[in-house]
Amino acid sequence: MPSKMQKPVLLVALGGNALIRKGQKGTLSEQFENLAVPVRQIARLSPLYKIIITHGNAPQVGSLLLQQESCPAVPKLPLEILVAQTQGWLGYMIESTLDSSLMELGVPSHPLVSLISYVVVDPTDPAFSAPTKPIGPVYRRKKDAPPGYPLVKTPKGYRRSVVSPRPVTIVEKREIRRLIGEDFIVICCGGGGIPVIREGRAFSGVDAVIDKDLASAKLAEEVGVDIFVIATDVPGAALDYGSERERFLKTVSPERAKRYLATGHFPDGSMGPKVEACIQFLKTGGKRAVITSVDAIEKGLEGSAGTQILPSIP
Amino acid sequence: MPSKMQKPVLLVALGGNALIRKGQKGTLSEQFENLAVPVRQIARLSPLYKIIITHGNAPQVGSLLLQQESCPAVPKLPLEILVAQTQGWLGYMIESTLDSSLMELGVPSHPLVSLISYVVVDPTDPAFSAPTKPIGPVYRRKKDAPPGYPLVKTPKGYRRSVVSPRPVTIVEKREIRRLIGEDFIVICCGGGGIPVIREGRAFSGVDAVIDKDLASAKLAEEVGVDIFVIATDVPGAALDYGSERERFLKTVSPERAKRYLATGHFPDGSMGPKVEACIQFLKTGGKRAVITSVDAIEKGLEGSAGTQILPSIP
Repeated sequence: MPSKMQKPVLLVALGGNALIRKGQKGTLSEQFENLAVPVRQIARLSPLYKIIITHGNAPQVGSLLLQQESCPAVPKLPLEILVAQTQGWLGYMIESTLDSSLMELGVPSHPLVSLISYVVVDPTDPAFSAPTKPIGPVYRRKKDAPPGYPLVKTPKGYRRSVVSPRPVTIVEKREIRRLIGEDFIVICCGGGGIPVIREGRAFSGVDAVIDKDLASAKLAEEVGVDIFVIATDVPGAALDYGSERERFLKTVSPERAKRYLATGHFPDGSMGPKVEACIQFLKTGGKRAVITSVDAIEKGLEGSAGTQILPSIP
Repeated sequence: MPSKMQKPVLLVALGGNALIRKGQKGTLSEQFENLAVPVRQIARLSPLYKIIITHGNAPQVGSLLLQQESCPAVPKLPLEILVAQTQGWLGYMIESTLDSSLMELGVPSHPLVSLISYVVVDPTDPAFSAPTKPIGPVYRRKKDAPPGYPLVKTPKGYRRSVVSPRPVTIVEKREIRRLIGEDFIVICCGGGGIPVIREGRAFSGVDAVIDKDLASAKLAEEVGVDIFVIATDVPGAALDYGSERERFLKTVSPERAKRYLATGHFPDGSMGPKVEACIQFLKTGGKRAVITSVDAIEKGLEGSAGTQILPSIP
């Protein structure tokens, strides 16, 4: 085993739908059960790596939006606050599940924290002119969705869409870097981070949701991550996804992935930002990125599952 | 100024109603504005103390309950998750307001984190047999409240009440101790912490809300806090509160405070747990506790406002 100082830094980004599986209603016990699948693997990996966990929140932030729209008695809050709420919600679920898994395994326990994180975005980002990020439940037909909101078509069906600017910098990067340096396991950047803009000497939130994979790649760059794993609900990145010609990629260079991205193989708001985040990660100093399913994180790291995005041999 | 190592540890517990003032609807800009009042004072104090901030969540957790009850389309979640949501929500608001205040003042910036915290409670706590903790909006008359839920009468009116067990231990105490030792400003134990019970080698959440002042006193004991300030919406602890004979206490010993508590001067679910938390704090090694209004934290520390709970001279 490598010495403490040499342990590589591993960032695992969990999909917001790691908690709610297809066909489930999303009760709390279902969510905890689903979550244990990736988290137990992370617990087993914890002696070998310095670990950062990020997570999505698309289903959860969608639920909170529906709830607040159903309740005229309570003033509505912008997405920034709902994202913050999901950081508390999922941060707690991940942390307590990991705590329990570590106790179960009897792994010498690392200090473990789940941090609120906010992420600066650019107020001139063109994303503010159109909603593109799918959140909330998936509707089979357009007319099943609640009326009055923009929808986006995803491979699984229609979903409500919101504005999604690109992450510029993670406000807590210094803190996260220091905690990782001291061997804390850190859960952060939930839901892509709470989006804020910096105006002079103050931060102020914006009504948007940042893509969690792009935020994770930015965090990886700012904190110095070696290996980036995106754990999602499909086995990896595929060409012609969902068609008869669908074939999953075992390894791909960032250059080739970029070409596939440009030719539309990876849908927006779904596999697209994941592949883009991996390309970004390798461009900014990352060593290896893996897109794999939530139940194959360890196998993905071993190279026996998922899609490996590896720098091309020069 | 004392050297870094000698700085006393200050814990400031902010009331959940520090964000929503009487007569306000509770819009987000109102909440940020209200919050800046205590937070600017904390920013000014930050060069002199190692700082922990805790906060309440009674109005916010009440709003989330109302919202989820209005929306049958989304599965309802237990209070543990709603508390976690308020930790994200308020943790973000406090952290970003403090960040902005520190930038404004040009104070050399400390690392600053807002942590998800969960707190172990005892499954045999008698509190589980009856709801006593008021949350959510205040209703002038019983019939103004939504039907079907237990209500409790508070000095301000009727409020919905929930089960509130006592805090046994803060799960993240080791982490918080370490962060304070390294001069981080730590926001934690929001809403009294997410209540969990420990079953063998696992934690599991319970449908309850812990009192944030009692949780803060427990945290103070476990982390080693010197001064405990409870910042609330009244100027201090009063005898015969709300009556013609009302008189605010300037200083009081824990012994005398205990007698006043026993004779009913401090209402349950309001000033009662605050005074009890201060007594607890002094009993477990704390040096000084102050109950003061959110706009008089600095004055409370100077001794020119609020109620000082001081150990009696032996």
